[in-house]
Amino acid sequence: GKMSDDISGSHTDWLTLNIGGRLFTTTRSTLVSKEPDSMLAHMFREKDVWGNKQDERGAFLIDRSPEYFEPILNYLRHGQIIINDGINLLGVLEEARFFGIEQLAEQLEVAIKNSHPPEDHSPLS
Amino acid sequence: GKMSDDISGSHTDWLTLNIGGRLFTTTRSTLVSKEPDSMLAHMFREKDVWGNKQDERGAFLIDRSPEYFEPILNYLRHGQIIINDGINLLGVLEEARFFGIEQLAEQLEVAIKNSHPPEDHSPLS
Amino acid sequence: GKMSDDISGSHTDWLTLNIGGRLFTTTRSTLVSKEPDSMLAHMFREKDVWGNKQDERGAFLIDRSPEYFEPILNYLRHGQIIINDGINLLGVLEEARFFGIEQLAEQLEVAIKNSHPPEDHSPLS
Amino acid sequence: GKMSDDISGSHTDWLTLNIGGRLFTTTRSTLVSKEPDSMLAHMFREKDVWGNKQDERGAFLIDRSPEYFEPILNYLRHGQIIINDGINLLGVLEEARFFGIEQLAEQLEVAIKNSHPPEDHSPLS
Amino acid sequence: GKMSDDISGSHTDWLTLNIGGRLFTTTRSTLVSKEPDSMLAHMFREKDVWGNKQDERGAFLIDRSPEYFEPILNYLRHGQIIINDGINLLGVLEEARFFGIEQLAEQLEVAIKNSHPPEDHSPLS
Repeated sequence: GKMSDDISGSHTDWLTLNIGGRLFTTTRSTLVSKEPDSMLAHMFREKDVWGNKQDERGAFLIDRSPEYFEPILNYLRHGQIIINDGINLLGVLEEARFFGIEQLAEQLEVAIKNSHPPEDHSPLS
Repeated sequence: GKMSDDISGSHTDWLTLNIGGRLFTTTRSTLVSKEPDSMLAHMFREKDVWGNKQDERGAFLIDRSPEYFEPILNYLRHGQIIINDGINLLGVLEEARFFGIEQLAEQLEVAIKNSHPPEDHSPLS
Repeated sequence: GKMSDDISGSHTDWLTLNIGGRLFTTTRSTLVSKEPDSMLAHMFREKDVWGNKQDERGAFLIDRSPEYFEPILNYLRHGQIIINDGINLLGVLEEARFFGIEQLAEQLEVAIKNSHPPEDHSPLS
Repeated sequence: GKMSDDISGSHTDWLTLNIGGRLFTTTRSTLVSKEPDSMLAHMFREKDVWGNKQDERGAFLIDRSPEYFEPILNYLRHGQIIINDGINLLGVLEEARFFGIEQLAEQLEVAIKNSHPPEDHSPLS
Repeated sequence: GKMSDDISGSHTDWLTLNIGGRLFTTTRSTLVSKEPDSMLAHMFREKDVWGNKQDERGAFLIDRSPEYFEPILNYLRHGQIIINDGINLLGVLEEARFFGIEQLAEQLEVAIKNSHPPEDHSPLS
């Protein structure tokens, strides 16, 4: 059934990303389906095409911030932007732009504009 | 004795979940007993029926957020909804819905409605 | 000398707990001496009596929350209740009760009553 | 293409730092290019020149704080100073000075002066 | 040169501490030089004299809180007391006293007195 396949991944392609030293396990479908035009989707659309380098455990190496990548991966999983208190939105925006996830970047820009009073546009949340 | 079995698991079935790259160790009974109608309970009710995929350490792979799964697992352990300051309730709700834990999802919806003033229903806690 | 033994554990019995997937290293004496009547003390008082199940690294498996266990272990080490801002006291209380550490549970109940205004007794800190 | 090389590192030189016990994976280019006059850049400019000591996994050992190094590495990746709420800016400044990243240290000093009222210059954020 | 030795440790003695289950990598010189009269300095002044017990990876076992040890190790590295928001100062004080780092304990006591209003001397920050 569909639900079983979605969750347990019995027919899906699992991969692990090594983002700046922290490991994230997900499916190729999560990286590719939600935002098919993003650079991240392009990187993982087809197996072994981009020549992504892997660490000794087989995790794909990406030289970016693990902390700010976390809400981005969740967004790709379920489509919601959910960010904890205390996490700097500018950090998430920076990663969204880097990975070319345009729709997410635009929503974050609006959220940043709304969450700060005009006089408080510092890079330090 | 009962207490010994509950805690030390000498007669119980231990398993480890790999949720998005973080490992959670628990018992099959925790996943199955508290919310027997949930999708999570169905996934782990019987050994090797759903064909859940396992990583190289034998942990069951689930492509979801580890951070927001943590209070859900605690809820299944003891029946209380206990969430730290700064953790976005919407993130926990999203996981509760995904795993089909209906009673928890309903309680979280009430808590979200009560914890925010009406004008502050942003996805960013 | 006493100090040497206390710290370096040259004559003590070290053990590792796997609480919900996170490892805590401590001594048998910490688990047993401070609250000798607790269930936790009973579990670890004598070697291999309770049949506590161990993971593949030899860590004793306990199906509870690692986050809220941390201040409990510190309490057993030095007798102080010290909890960070943002950690939900109800979560620590739940673990104190589970492990049968009565004196700690009572002090936490008083702290919870004092730290919240009467109208704010929600499970969400 | 350029983008592919930047991200997947198929032609780049990956290395892992062991900062005070936590592992950070990055590229030599990140450490060397953004602030070429810093001490950190000097340490990693050329392979095996400084004789940096490595741990048993091959990670380069540096006896400093991992927590406050994190925003510094992000700064070297994308040029933005982005720091979460609750992280003490003085801790990041201390590391910026240690690694000789002068431009970052100066910006942090300004941010610290602006973020605190004059009467609140304590080392505890 | 001096700078090279300080950082890369090519001539220094690296060791790893297992504090309550979390690993901290540092140099013998950091533990011994900044506060030479502390108990911690005595424990690690000379190799293999105290008979500190090691785990299977060779890390020295100490049965204390890893979370509150972190700012103490940073203090020994650079001489500054820098503590994040939300970390209970009483937890750091407890470790400073345990390891016999007197000057740090005194400064923390002053900071605790100054940071709380007189009526708020609870163990819960």
